[in-house]
Amino acid sequence: MSELLEKVNTPDDLDGLKADELNRLAEEIRDYLIETISKTGGHLASNLGVVELTVALHRHLKSPRDSIIWDVGHQSYTHKILTGRKKELSTIRQGGGLSGFPKRDESEHDKINTGHSSTSISSALGMARARDHRSSEERVYCVIGDGAITGGMAMEALNHAGHVGTDLTVILNDNEMSISKNVGALSSYLSKLRSEPGLRRLKEDMSDIVDSIPGIGSSVSRTVDKAKDSVKYMMVPGIIFEELGFTYLGPVSGHDIESLQKVFKQADKISGPVLIHAATVKGKGYCPAEDEPCDYHGVSSFEIESGSQNRSRENPTYSDVFGETLSEMGETDIRIVGITAAMPAGTGLEKFADRFPNRFYDVGIAEQHALTFGAGLARGGMRPVVSIYSTFLQRGYDQVIHDICLQELPVIIGIDRAGIVGGDGETHQGQFDISFLRAIPNLTMMAPRDEAELARMMWTAYKLEKPAAIRYPRGEGEGVDIPESPDTIPTGEGERLREGEDVEIIALGSMVYPALAAAELLEEQGISAGVFDARFIQPLDDKILEIVSQSSLLVTAEENAVSGGFGSLIVEKAGQADINLPDSFINIGLPDEFIPHGDQQKMRRKYGLDAESIAGRISSRIKGDGGRI
Amino acid sequence: MSELLEKVNTPDDLDGLKADELNRLAEEIRDYLIETISKTGGHLASNLGVVELTVALHRHLKSPRDSIIWDVGHQSYTHKILTGRKKELSTIRQGGGLSGFPKRDESEHDKINTGHSSTSISSALGMARARDHRSSEERVYCVIGDGAITGGMAMEALNHAGHVGTDLTVILNDNEMSISKNVGALSSYLSKLRSEPGLRRLKEDMSDIVDSIPGIGSSVSRTVDKAKDSVKYMMVPGIIFEELGFTYLGPVSGHDIESLQKVFKQADKISGPVLIHAATVKGKGYCPAEDEPCDYHGVSSFEIESGSQNRSRENPTYSDVFGETLSEMGETDIRIVGITAAMPAGTGLEKFADRFPNRFYDVGIAEQHALTFGAGLARGGMRPVVSIYSTFLQRGYDQVIHDICLQELPVIIGIDRAGIVGGDGETHQGQFDISFLRAIPNLTMMAPRDEAELARMMWTAYKLEKPAAIRYPRGEGEGVDIPESPDTIPTGEGERLREGEDVEIIALGSMVYPALAAAELLEEQGISAGVFDARFIQPLDDKILEIVSQSSLLVTAEENAVSGGFGSLIVEKAGQADINLPDSFINIGLPDEFIPHGDQQKMRRKYGLDAESIAGRISSRIKGDGGRI
Repeated sequence: MSELLEKVNTPDDLDGLKADELNRLAEEIRDYLIETISKTGGHLASNLGVVELTVALHRHLKSPRDSIIWDVGHQSYTHKILTGRKKELSTIRQGGGLSGFPKRDESEHDKINTGHSSTSISSALGMARARDHRSSEERVYCVIGDGAITGGMAMEALNHAGHVGTDLTVILNDNEMSISKNVGALSSYLSKLRSEPGLRRLKEDMSDIVDSIPGIGSSVSRTVDKAKDSVKYMMVPGIIFEELGFTYLGPVSGHDIESLQKVFKQADKISGPVLIHAATVKGKGYCPAEDEPCDYHGVSSFEIESGSQNRSRENPTYSDVFGETLSEMGETDIRIVGITAAMPAGTGLEKFADRFPNRFYDVGIAEQHALTFGAGLARGGMRPVVSIYSTFLQRGYDQVIHDICLQELPVIIGIDRAGIVGGDGETHQGQFDISFLRAIPNLTMMAPRDEAELARMMWTAYKLEKPAAIRYPRGEGEGVDIPESPDTIPTGEGERLREGEDVEIIALGSMVYPALAAAELLEEQGISAGVFDARFIQPLDDKILEIVSQSSLLVTAEENAVSGGFGSLIVEKAGQADINLPDSFINIGLPDEFIPHGDQQKMRRKYGLDAESIAGRISSRIKGDGGRI
Repeated sequence: MSELLEKVNTPDDLDGLKADELNRLAEEIRDYLIETISKTGGHLASNLGVVELTVALHRHLKSPRDSIIWDVGHQSYTHKILTGRKKELSTIRQGGGLSGFPKRDESEHDKINTGHSSTSISSALGMARARDHRSSEERVYCVIGDGAITGGMAMEALNHAGHVGTDLTVILNDNEMSISKNVGALSSYLSKLRSEPGLRRLKEDMSDIVDSIPGIGSSVSRTVDKAKDSVKYMMVPGIIFEELGFTYLGPVSGHDIESLQKVFKQADKISGPVLIHAATVKGKGYCPAEDEPCDYHGVSSFEIESGSQNRSRENPTYSDVFGETLSEMGETDIRIVGITAAMPAGTGLEKFADRFPNRFYDVGIAEQHALTFGAGLARGGMRPVVSIYSTFLQRGYDQVIHDICLQELPVIIGIDRAGIVGGDGETHQGQFDISFLRAIPNLTMMAPRDEAELARMMWTAYKLEKPAAIRYPRGEGEGVDIPESPDTIPTGEGERLREGEDVEIIALGSMVYPALAAAELLEEQGISAGVFDARFIQPLDDKILEIVSQSSLLVTAEENAVSGGFGSLIVEKAGQADINLPDSFINIGLPDEFIPHGDQQKMRRKYGLDAESIAGRISSRIKGDGGRI
């Protein structure tokens, strides 16, 4: 750690620093970020982009009295460094270490937990109004990216904030990127604003020109007067924000600490909501990340010199296989279209996008629209496939019900990162999708045990011509071969994978292989375990109820909350069919709590989802010593 | 029915009509609407507002080749009249009759089922792109209100449509209202556009003026050139929409059929997305509705002359009691704030708004923002109460998880219209909330059996200082007295209401009184039924598991989907506790299908939720003849 950074532990420590020292500090922080993240992995490019912005904010504001709310929050590393968590940065995103997002438990400077996009203006407006109600005067700032601001709820919040009119500063961190290159009309608009910084000056110039026109006949003079008002009004850049009731300031370079401080002061003097348009460069100061910010959004550990990341993967990921299979489907049917909400790389759809650019839609951070747009495409005769992370599908829940399932439109939903996600932690766990989707009529739901089954299920969903969802985990597949022409699976048919006499494990998706491994372990102990892969959540295989009625010890295993999850579905169906559970029942899944961040495999172990834990619980139960967690 | 309307049965029948005939037809339709709805009840004001617009659309377009998508859809009555459903209008919203919303089952002219707000641009864009993919050329129009367009997903869709740039016509039906008076900055902007129709002319005038300036020195000439471009660009009204990639046309009177047809023709010639700003009057042509459009949004039957509605209510509604109790809470604690998403009247919050205007927020049609704004207020020390219909809470699901429960912020969510809603039908049923909420950690969930319990539960939630949700049905309470100082209920404590030996009914919320009545009926047959009011969904009363373990016949009763619902929760918990269900189990609730429209009481009976049905199933089961549905 370098000289200046060594001395800075709290925001107050910035007070004594002069302009050039602040710049130097920013450089030191940048080096420290690169050095640390090169070892730990984490969000790199977004953090490099806001170093100066964060320094300027903490120099200007008095945190924690004043509030800084980070939209999404993966760009808060410098904020963490400046608020007492410098040393702990090396633990970021690791189990027990710092969260990769703002977290109230960690620091009084983290005002709101975040993780999902587009929430900050709503939260900030709430806090600003709470301040007003308390007749207090602290400042509330939020920092939102140009990707996040296109999310529907951010627009809802802008519309309301402009109406309420209270003091609130929204910093639009415009780096022209979501995780991938940003899309949408608003994005084009912002880039026009960035390229025409002279516009603001024009406002006064134009007004002067109109004033200086000499002999204009009285017939047009009223028009000119009106025009002058309009010019004054309309020449302001950022007119969209001005029309929504905000004062627009900028664009300002987000890497110029002095200019930023100046514009913050200006903002504080203005009554009502202010939007500061700060232009930043994602990955700033680290060439590989500046050149390919998408590749350096979330990184594994990497070599600083070359930028090469240590991505040691044995098998393709589920997302890879999803993208590959979709491309194959796209070859055979020109009606297939792919849709993502700003995650072309993460969902594996890039492959499809390269092959069929005209049938690929990145709609921006807009899960609601992604799903209903898909419904519209289906209604128009296309076969849309929407790939979306489990945690973000929570944003499009009503659209799955109202726009897709109610009309039985053949939209295929790929639910990526279902289950434990690892480093992103509690805001991003794919923990609830079975619980919230299984109540919806007309929706077929599947979960593959491996990547070959994923391919099969995609073809199954395609042939079904009805709403279908497939949930699959984050990360690598099992390394099985993917058939060249995957066969389809009869709707609602599970698969018996292993016969056993002492216990029956009904496993779903990512839990099938651990269940099989557990059965092996149990065999070593002389316990004979059967394993049945349910494959379908709905419709549920009737054979499962037979198994329930015939086994002496029944185990259900899923990587979803046990509340309302797959095991819950089985006991619900059994209850309705008047089938009693066996004398002994173990319902394996995630507990009724938010699951923190940490290595995916370790977390699975911690929550009892690995083979050893499953075998342990079963053997304890059989041997009579409980085995409940 | 009058002369012209008599002859019109399909859109083609409009072809022969001259301008004055179209106007006369509109008048006849208006009379027919008033006459019919005065008898049936239904959505009045919104339909009166779009008579001319609908006539003009069907005269201009070739439906069903061309598509008209109605946002929300409650304004589609004239569309139904013009597309072969004139005679059936008298059955609207009644069981087995016409739906109050567009419905594909009813007509090939209904392109998309709607009901919820703000979906139309997404659907229409999907259909427009499907048309492009098919290399076809039909036109896609959608009609969206100025309230609905502020919903987040509409903004997401605008942003994407402007980016995609395909042909699509969005008609902004601006009547300055949601169901109540519209709010938000965009609304102010639109009203400015409405009041400055001359602005468009200014665009050219201003450009001419700049051209005519004689001797301007060369030093400023570049500035002037730039200014001219900017003026040309920025003087266009509807700049927000223009900046988002739309061509803005209007404002045009939505009651002037000739002008509308002209602007539609203009729109069809323009390449890319077009937004037509049509100014309409909600309730147009019927004085009581024009004067008080909010009161005439959804009406019961009424007397045409006076406008007086036949609202025969014996007891206050749950919404009334919610609003009243909230007002009382507001008296005792200045931190209490009330939040609604465009439903101040429907949710009963008007009372609170009148008493505490400064602590009341109508955020517009923006459920996502409403909840996260509430979270921000809570974080700032306030005690927000968000009242929202069950069906619309589906729009804010992620916000309940990510912004409220993950941080355990003390937001109280009033879930109004949980269960069967009646005439609005399948898009509006409060059918899923238990299923999707019960998986969320940290959320206390309650359901009152009557209005006195609602008041108690609100105070209980208030004292809890944690996230809490209370679900209650649409319509009148049970007529019980509400205690002046309602006591609170210990968290997770249900209540034994009746002892019984042959069967135990565990009932929730709106099912408690029917369960008690069923017990009376059973007694007449010599069957002794116990009734336990669960009151809490989570945490679940431990006594319930005792009941499960001790009863011979167990019945659960809820007005929610059985999939993942309250009964499911009980068997899930019983399974986890290794408690077997009794030999006989009946799980009463809504089946795994979308529930159509129809009278609320009749629908409850149809789905077996009334006392007679409950008693019938129990007695059949006991007498051994099945009794399953």
